Amino acid sequence: MPSISKKGNQMPESPIRKLVPYAEDAKKRGVKVYHLNIGQPDIKTPKIALDAVKNNTIETLSYERSEGSEEYRTKLAKYYVKNDIPVTKDNIVVTTGGSEALLFTIGSITDPGDEMIIPEPFYANYNGFSNASGVTVVPVISKIEDNFALPKIEEFEKLITKKTKAILICNPGNPTGYLYAKEEIEKLKQIVIKHDLFLIADEVYREFAYDGLKHTSVMSLEGADQNAIVIDSVSKRYSMCGARIGCIVSKNDAFIKTTIKFAQARLSPPTFALIASEAALDTPQSYFDDVKSEYVDRRNTLITELEKIEGVKVAKPNGAFYCVAELPVKDTDHFAQWILEKFSHDNETVMVAPASGFYSTPGEGKNQIRMAYVLNKKDLIKSVEILAAALKQYQQ
Amino acid sequence: MPSISKKGNQMPESPIRKLVPYAEDAKKRGVKVYHLNIGQPDIKTPKIALDAVKNNTIETLSYERSEGSEEYRTKLAKYYVKNDIPVTKDNIVVTTGGSEALLFTIGSITDPGDEMIIPEPFYANYNGFSNASGVTVVPVISKIEDNFALPKIEEFEKLITKKTKAILICNPGNPTGYLYAKEEIEKLKQIVIKHDLFLIADEVYREFAYDGLKHTSVMSLEGADQNAIVIDSVSKRYSMCGARIGCIVSKNDAFIKTTIKFAQARLSPPTFALIASEAALDTPQSYFDDVKSEYVDRRNTLITELEKIEGVKVAKPNGAFYCVAELPVKDTDHFAQWILEKFSHDNETVMVAPASGFYSTPGEGKNQIRMAYVLNKKDLIKSVEILAAALKQYQQ
Repeated sequence: MPSISKKGNQMPESPIRKLVPYAEDAKKRGVKVYHLNIGQPDIKTPKIALDAVKNNTIETLSYERSEGSEEYRTKLAKYYVKNDIPVTKDNIVVTTGGSEALLFTIGSITDPGDEMIIPEPFYANYNGFSNASGVTVVPVISKIEDNFALPKIEEFEKLITKKTKAILICNPGNPTGYLYAKEEIEKLKQIVIKHDLFLIADEVYREFAYDGLKHTSVMSLEGADQNAIVIDSVSKRYSMCGARIGCIVSKNDAFIKTTIKFAQARLSPPTFALIASEAALDTPQSYFDDVKSEYVDRRNTLITELEKIEGVKVAKPNGAFYCVAELPVKDTDHFAQWILEKFSHDNETVMVAPASGFYSTPGEGKNQIRMAYVLNKKDLIKSVEILAAALKQYQQ
Repeated sequence: MPSISKKGNQMPESPIRKLVPYAEDAKKRGVKVYHLNIGQPDIKTPKIALDAVKNNTIETLSYERSEGSEEYRTKLAKYYVKNDIPVTKDNIVVTTGGSEALLFTIGSITDPGDEMIIPEPFYANYNGFSNASGVTVVPVISKIEDNFALPKIEEFEKLITKKTKAILICNPGNPTGYLYAKEEIEKLKQIVIKHDLFLIADEVYREFAYDGLKHTSVMSLEGADQNAIVIDSVSKRYSMCGARIGCIVSKNDAFIKTTIKFAQARLSPPTFALIASEAALDTPQSYFDDVKSEYVDRRNTLITELEKIEGVKVAKPNGAFYCVAELPVKDTDHFAQWILEKFSHDNETVMVAPASGFYSTPGEGKNQIRMAYVLNKKDLIKSVEILAAALKQYQQ
């Protein structure tokens, strides 16, 4: 019998996936499950984007240009300029979601055995893409006590070897919701210039910066044009996760040219989704204002309610729509399964993401969970009430 | 300055891409260019598929299940059963185009340094995906004199090493249009079973089998369930190349489970395209009958016209919509550029794909071109007339 590859065997499973059967079983028993486990917002997609697809006049659904059409990239560049990211269409390669942007980026800058430093906890799929390319993730731990601020620069420098090719951050962060300060980004810039590394920033939550704070893109840094790479996506910005349109942005021409070769091999990004994404660029500002105020409201509600529970410690996120909380339990993998399998409160329960999947250091994050505040306020209050009741019963 | 990876530098450029600027310049000079260079059919997409997207009632464009919805996979399984491929939904993983199906397949069964045997000439992007995974393509040459039939079994066996993980075929073939006979597929089956290899068949042109010949899927072979993998796509079947929906089909559970982990890392295939693809499964048989008769007509026209040119040798394709021709020139890379750059006939010219890009053996295919008969008969006749005039002038 032919065998699976080492790489295939090492591909990590989604940290939430193993809980899905327990959630399905709960539903079969008539238990309502509140989903705080996944970054799938309930926010409506802008009508202008959906209408563009409905009103398309396509007769033959053809390939799109591998790196995205001139028109779309030109409009995208305008969006970036407005967001303090001074680029042109030639600095942009359109991809099938932020996922493919990461895959092409890692493929273009690393060979098997190379290393990439990532502040931990991090988006679990960074592990998957790194493994698929044979790259080793080197974590640098950020702590809930520090609200997941960037670890000290020395901590990064200690980890740099000859094999280090890049530092990858997510800003604002998934799962932490942490928004990096301009000074932190500047510090990273100094390291990557000093050590000839790429600085990759996953900025798909750019619009979700709260409390009057301003998002700082790595592409806005002076003197880092050859180092800075932005990973982007329409998924969260316009609540269109199912579109699967993202892009790579960089002023490093050799890098962009290389990513286009990867793009050519897979021919084209999805055409219908490109129509939606191009139209979405005309979404009125009021849409974002409304969405932002809704998320701030939800965040405040979630944090306030969580802090009422004894023994629960919560980081205060300034961005994205996630928060990491420490629970008074030893093993949130077990707890997250138990709350679906064995527990219910007035015939309802919640699904959360155990945080261990967001760490690559063994043993880290075992008492933490990630919650996505993608539900309305009423449901969030209800969810925390269920969580509180569960913790009470679980500890007995 | 940080540097591009070895892998990135080695990514092959599309064999057609370098000709694009010359085609654009010709158009700027007012010269009409007939495109025989790319497998983008002019055939209309089934209305039922386009209408399903137009009539969608989505309000929030959400992620789809990573491996595709139960509904779509269930309907797909019925399509396969009807095509003598006895599978269930659990043998199917939905992907973003056939491209991603190949990427996940190669990732699941190979590690860097492994080898994959492919009859040559082959679809150029097999090189790109192999390179992206650090896999070495080992070509086995099929010849225009033999109409590109499968090389003898001994030729394959000579090439098998400890690092060989799979044999990959495209059936019917791009660029050859060759449809493998059942006996040829059976022979491959015997080798892969004997040597514990996977047998991957890219069957995206399954419907395009002509002259009363029947397509034989590797999934229809008895006793090869653990070895056989099908790569599929809706792109050619329904003339919807821009959808970017494909799938992996296999009865090897360990393999399918592994590909799902790759699918989870990229979250979801594109939702709008899934709506179109699911609806397309209800396309009436008359659509395929019409398309097939149109392609047979075009092929006959193209071959008849090409054979009239002195010094041109053409393989007789029984499937897909490509044919490879040998021209009385030394270097078709040069000729294909010259015909765009320096030549025109009544202010018109043609763009063809030099075949060298479809070979990995250096020097092979230098006097061959690939033509895609994706234009109507009148334009095909005109295109060959231009080609004949060009050859006359080029040889002088």
